[in-house]
Amino acid sequence: MTLNPLLPLMYEPLVRTALLEDLGHAGDITADAIVPADQRATLVLRARQPGVVAGLDISASAFQMVSPAITLSAERGDGSVVTPGDIIATIDGPARALLTGERTALNFLCHLSGVATATASLVTAISGTRAHIVCTRKTTPGLRSLEKYAVRAGGGGNHRFGLDDAVLIKDNHIALAGGIRPAVERAKARAGHLVKIEVEVDTLSQLEQALALRVDAVLLDNMTVDELRKAVVMVGDRAITEASGRITIATAPAIAATGVNLISVGWLTHSAPALDIGLDYLDLKPR
Amino acid sequence: MTLNPLLPLMYEPLVRTALLEDLGHAGDITADAIVPADQRATLVLRARQPGVVAGLDISASAFQMVSPAITLSAERGDGSVVTPGDIIATIDGPARALLTGERTALNFLCHLSGVATATASLVTAISGTRAHIVCTRKTTPGLRSLEKYAVRAGGGGNHRFGLDDAVLIKDNHIALAGGIRPAVERAKARAGHLVKIEVEVDTLSQLEQALALRVDAVLLDNMTVDELRKAVVMVGDRAITEASGRITIATAPAIAATGVNLISVGWLTHSAPALDIGLDYLDLKPR
Amino acid sequence: MTLNPLLPLMYEPLVRTALLEDLGHAGDITADAIVPADQRATLVLRARQPGVVAGLDISASAFQMVSPAITLSAERGDGSVVTPGDIIATIDGPARALLTGERTALNFLCHLSGVATATASLVTAISGTRAHIVCTRKTTPGLRSLEKYAVRAGGGGNHRFGLDDAVLIKDNHIALAGGIRPAVERAKARAGHLVKIEVEVDTLSQLEQALALRVDAVLLDNMTVDELRKAVVMVGDRAITEASGRITIATAPAIAATGVNLISVGWLTHSAPALDIGLDYLDLKPR
Amino acid sequence: MTLNPLLPLMYEPLVRTALLEDLGHAGDITADAIVPADQRATLVLRARQPGVVAGLDISASAFQMVSPAITLSAERGDGSVVTPGDIIATIDGPARALLTGERTALNFLCHLSGVATATASLVTAISGTRAHIVCTRKTTPGLRSLEKYAVRAGGGGNHRFGLDDAVLIKDNHIALAGGIRPAVERAKARAGHLVKIEVEVDTLSQLEQALALRVDAVLLDNMTVDELRKAVVMVGDRAITEASGRITIATAPAIAATGVNLISVGWLTHSAPALDIGLDYLDLKPR
Amino acid sequence: MTLNPLLPLMYEPLVRTALLEDLGHAGDITADAIVPADQRATLVLRARQPGVVAGLDISASAFQMVSPAITLSAERGDGSVVTPGDIIATIDGPARALLTGERTALNFLCHLSGVATATASLVTAISGTRAHIVCTRKTTPGLRSLEKYAVRAGGGGNHRFGLDDAVLIKDNHIALAGGIRPAVERAKARAGHLVKIEVEVDTLSQLEQALALRVDAVLLDNMTVDELRKAVVMVGDRAITEASGRITIATAPAIAATGVNLISVGWLTHSAPALDIGLDYLDLKPR
Amino acid sequence: MTLNPLLPLMYEPLVRTALLEDLGHAGDITADAIVPADQRATLVLRARQPGVVAGLDISASAFQMVSPAITLSAERGDGSVVTPGDIIATIDGPARALLTGERTALNFLCHLSGVATATASLVTAISGTRAHIVCTRKTTPGLRSLEKYAVRAGGGGNHRFGLDDAVLIKDNHIALAGGIRPAVERAKARAGHLVKIEVEVDTLSQLEQALALRVDAVLLDNMTVDELRKAVVMVGDRAITEASGRITIATAPAIAATGVNLISVGWLTHSAPALDIGLDYLDLKPR
Repeated sequence: MTLNPLLPLMYEPLVRTALLEDLGHAGDITADAIVPADQRATLVLRARQPGVVAGLDISASAFQMVSPAITLSAERGDGSVVTPGDIIATIDGPARALLTGERTALNFLCHLSGVATATASLVTAISGTRAHIVCTRKTTPGLRSLEKYAVRAGGGGNHRFGLDDAVLIKDNHIALAGGIRPAVERAKARAGHLVKIEVEVDTLSQLEQALALRVDAVLLDNMTVDELRKAVVMVGDRAITEASGRITIATAPAIAATGVNLISVGWLTHSAPALDIGLDYLDLKPR
Repeated sequence: MTLNPLLPLMYEPLVRTALLEDLGHAGDITADAIVPADQRATLVLRARQPGVVAGLDISASAFQMVSPAITLSAERGDGSVVTPGDIIATIDGPARALLTGERTALNFLCHLSGVATATASLVTAISGTRAHIVCTRKTTPGLRSLEKYAVRAGGGGNHRFGLDDAVLIKDNHIALAGGIRPAVERAKARAGHLVKIEVEVDTLSQLEQALALRVDAVLLDNMTVDELRKAVVMVGDRAITEASGRITIATAPAIAATGVNLISVGWLTHSAPALDIGLDYLDLKPR
Repeated sequence: MTLNPLLPLMYEPLVRTALLEDLGHAGDITADAIVPADQRATLVLRARQPGVVAGLDISASAFQMVSPAITLSAERGDGSVVTPGDIIATIDGPARALLTGERTALNFLCHLSGVATATASLVTAISGTRAHIVCTRKTTPGLRSLEKYAVRAGGGGNHRFGLDDAVLIKDNHIALAGGIRPAVERAKARAGHLVKIEVEVDTLSQLEQALALRVDAVLLDNMTVDELRKAVVMVGDRAITEASGRITIATAPAIAATGVNLISVGWLTHSAPALDIGLDYLDLKPR
Repeated sequence: MTLNPLLPLMYEPLVRTALLEDLGHAGDITADAIVPADQRATLVLRARQPGVVAGLDISASAFQMVSPAITLSAERGDGSVVTPGDIIATIDGPARALLTGERTALNFLCHLSGVATATASLVTAISGTRAHIVCTRKTTPGLRSLEKYAVRAGGGGNHRFGLDDAVLIKDNHIALAGGIRPAVERAKARAGHLVKIEVEVDTLSQLEQALALRVDAVLLDNMTVDELRKAVVMVGDRAITEASGRITIATAPAIAATGVNLISVGWLTHSAPALDIGLDYLDLKPR
Repeated sequence: MTLNPLLPLMYEPLVRTALLEDLGHAGDITADAIVPADQRATLVLRARQPGVVAGLDISASAFQMVSPAITLSAERGDGSVVTPGDIIATIDGPARALLTGERTALNFLCHLSGVATATASLVTAISGTRAHIVCTRKTTPGLRSLEKYAVRAGGGGNHRFGLDDAVLIKDNHIALAGGIRPAVERAKARAGHLVKIEVEVDTLSQLEQALALRVDAVLLDNMTVDELRKAVVMVGDRAITEASGRITIATAPAIAATGVNLISVGWLTHSAPALDIGLDYLDLKPR
Repeated sequence: MTLNPLLPLMYEPLVRTALLEDLGHAGDITADAIVPADQRATLVLRARQPGVVAGLDISASAFQMVSPAITLSAERGDGSVVTPGDIIATIDGPARALLTGERTALNFLCHLSGVATATASLVTAISGTRAHIVCTRKTTPGLRSLEKYAVRAGGGGNHRFGLDDAVLIKDNHIALAGGIRPAVERAKARAGHLVKIEVEVDTLSQLEQALALRVDAVLLDNMTVDELRKAVVMVGDRAITEASGRITIATAPAIAATGVNLISVGWLTHSAPALDIGLDYLDLKPR
């Protein structure tokens, strides 16, 4: 998996915001009232569902923002497959700070592990084909690079990170330009040498037009498996082929078997349920 | 529904962040290359699934941050039930700005409408009982008040917004304090007059202890329907009763029928799938 | 006192802003020109007036933002009563950094200790009664949770932290709703189960209306001691009673003696004079 | 008065922070529940104490951040002397937004008018002398330029805004440098041509040393009236003279009469009580 | 030129920072003291050197942040070639606000026009060849996308915007990987389908290795014109060729004539002198 | 040189912004793919041109923000004169983090050293005269205090840091006020005791007017050497004299020889080319 070790630096403001929205006006009034300031505790993060872990570094940074005295030692790194009961990490520190930070840390970890798990399930479903699962720009506002990282942790790849890192000419662009040709030509005239150009096509006839314009990739939108198969043959190695539209675990294998290079899936990031990861305190005793 | 008309003010930084993570280094290189700067367009937001709408104001603020020349007129306000094909809003403005802003606006709208829709389905499932559905602190980092608003749009209520607006004494606090009594007493000694105190109990015997300490609410965690029924009788009107733990659409009716006041559900906010809302451009023509 | 140990995390941006408004364009041009970079110094924070200390952690965080090499060891924690000459803390570090940070650190400490001291004087004035002194939302912009913490350090309590943590129905809300009944009913229809409802009343007849609607608390605004006494009897244990309006050290004892639960006072936070705390360098010698 | 018309731009982040600390998690739950969204209202800001107004622009910006539909028309500009009952401004807009914004707006206005009023009282006390009242760096964290503006609104002047806009050599700098001479010489060697150099002196002998070094100003710290008089004669027109230390309304006239140029007073900014300004709604009626 | 119309949105924080660093503690004390608040003025931006304009929108946003009442009407858009005396834009508004904003607005405009002008001179120098001038990541901290936009305004193109939008394998990566092959293989194994891979080579032998690995582009670093010519022949259409290293106006034509696709130049962004653009007030009269 | 040791604190947001604009969406995809996470490396910063170093602390803070495990030990501090080949600093740490941070760190260092170098060349050109070289407000947006620091590192001084730290009355102010006299009088009426007043004059007759009004400094704008000489005589010690307008290395000596106190030069900050400083890795070996 391609790690991005600087995600905690990039997302420090979000971690802070997430903690502050939990602390609110007055902080953790329960722990502050009940738990002695100098009490320490140890807890473990434990999987309660099968899945794939993602987000340990961000979770650790949430704990450490609450108290630099908290340490986390990971048993299973990001990208690990876990089954219920598996210990993911052991965390140690002042009890109050652990109680205060636990919800924020888990909110990151369960969400990102949910994305990784959804991805892994789809990757598994198409194993043996040459297709790759990629995510889209349908991400949770403010969490895009984190979620795209989680997709990689789950074995998937990333399509565009933003509006800036590739040209993707969709139906509306084509309509506004008056056709595929003028749209592609305007894009080619302006795109830098590092930028790839992809065109969304709904029919094989549109596909032919796009290929003739020598684009880098074609997005085969909502095509049937039969159309996809024909499209893949038509394209040959002239472009990267991407299938999209209403992909499910059930439909993905047949789509992958058509020979497309990429299958892009919005729900990996916008609808993956959180992975259930629990947090168990070890041997709590009053002082 | 209790609206919070100041959410766009409160979430302006997140809307900006969400746009900037989409604009990246170089902005919308596709629309900028292809669409003439002075072309206008009109689009409609249209439901593609049945559900409940939430987040129109935030979505509108995303479009307007891209261009103040964009106007949105809502056909269905937040909290409206929609069926596939229903037009939610009509949006008008410069074509480029619409294309640039659409993904960010939809990412907010589909996510929040997903939360509202999940909530509404659970609210409907328990209609006729006296129970209310409430959400938890298991929210997406950085989006808590938005998601809690979406829960209200779906007909639910909100449990704690943060660690600061009520005391919730859980098993770990009790263990660290050495029992329910010292935990509640410490909390009472410190809590302000506006703050309610709730205690999590796993057994009826713990429940009795908590009630004897005159707490405001009891969290009946992972109890069976039978236990819940007994608990409700025991409590009478001495405290608010809240059931939690692995609530589903299937199990909620029986739990609600026990007479509990509140059913709290984490997955409304951490695992609700996005509502599928499309964005159709009207009569696009080249210029 | 209920501490909030996360205030330095919550107020890091304000500490930074306060330092930057002192550093301005060019930093501490006096210390940088005069004091050798490697000189160290020790100073003590010493009370020059009798009072109550609050804000040591925030002050320490200001020094440490200037230089992590500065250490502060507190002799008297927040909430301590001090008399002139008492040493509050000893601070050690690079001399330049101490000189640069001292004003910002003191501005926090003297202001918050002033709030704590004003609170303590009022708390003392009503000792022996059942009343509690609480502060209001009349706080210095940007410092609310800090000032509310200082009130607690002085022995007081906190009324609402914001517009969100309780319903407080005032005269203008009543006028706009067309009476106490519709105002309370609308609020009850919308308030969550954790939210208490308080109504401001000016007369005993209004009080009776509010009590009949079973509100949680009544704000007895600007009533005479005689009216307050009658109000307390009328209320019995049906609601929390709060007296407000032009409370002074002189008038507070009689008001407290009426049996009200709470006396709310705006000037604790908006008009408390700073506590005079000095900063004495020990044994400065040139190098 | 020297206005700074860009204070609303400079303090937009603080106005936002102040509103957000009042809105908290859920916004104005009272007004949102009770007041119809389309109801409008008009209110007046009215003095309840004699004093001097400061901060109208910042207050207006708080209201307008809540709703751009709010308009404020000032009857008395900043710097105006008001007596109880005087209308300072009329404000018109959506009733909910007015109710939501009023506390934040007043917190700015009452605090800054308090600073202006304290300043004006001291300025009046020394009228007829050549002395000017100036404030210090003992300001509320995060509000320095606002408070210094309020001092000007009250007829005072400003001493240093920060550590960067003048060299002020105090006792500790002198001790660390090993005397007045090395301290001044190091400062002169480094200070830019726009920067004035002031030295704090406690005795007339120190004063003579400082004058011999041709500094721009001398801070006569905690001197008696008699010493000040002698100091003023010694200085002649060789430097600006500034008296400081425990200045009160009672002691200021005699100090001013010594002929010093400036009297610097910390409590104008750190201990001025808020000016009582009320906010009266006009003709509220239910709809 | 590929415009990025959202640069003012993306750079609003920098425009604010730039204004605030000019306003400092007290704002524009000269204009505030001297110019009546209600005086208006008109000014023109006029070229004083030949060059290419870039940055008008950002400059306009600086003026408008000072006062929304300022309007700017451009005579020459970004990318226009100007000669001394040419009017670039006319600006109208309150005189004080114009005086306050002018330096910040010009600092943006002159810097970005300097970058555009430097680019244009190099583009002109190699006209008639197939080479394109591109900039690098050697940009001014905080201004990268602005400077890259200015390069486009001057007729150039952009190489990588950041570390994330292409793989560029340099000598140090190769050394750490133990050769070109392992470096490229590791990169290929991890790079997404939109990401191009470029390898820096110093010799023709290294070039051959890179080509054999089918990379997308080769960076021919510090090669002589002769080597470049051979390299271009070797590459054919197997990869994009980029020449870099000590390019000047004098050396660029010969390098371009070798047939390379791209010439990358750091000094366009890190060392371009500002373009001299003046700001002339029209018909100023006292009031 | 007057250091400002708090520049890393003041510029932490810019360092973060600069890193984030380089990390973009996905971080350093080259180093993350190729370099093992636990590999360490050592590099040296080495001058490739003669010049003066400035900005080592800021550069170090960029590296350390990427990884706190990076250490920098300076061989030549800011203000040092270096010749090609000189080692400025040795830097040690994780190889990936070094590769990721190097461009940002160099962008600061080369830019600021460029400013220092330009300044030093001009300072050298006028050595032996009594004139000082000072910079202006023509700085790069967002970097003002850094660039002004670099000017000091190069042996120059600083003119105004912003609009707030001195009154500078220019031609347009004079026109709007209706003459030098009303302009100066308005300024004097409002300026604080720490604020110096400077007037820009174009002719000797204007100079006489300004001197008669006892201003602190006169800006002799675009005067010939002959005029400057006369102006210096006219002024005597009545004011500080400053020459400005189209100063070059060639013209500066004659201007300085006229006896003016200050020569202010915009291009030190807006047009100084970056100093070429390289970064050489030592003994890189694969693992």
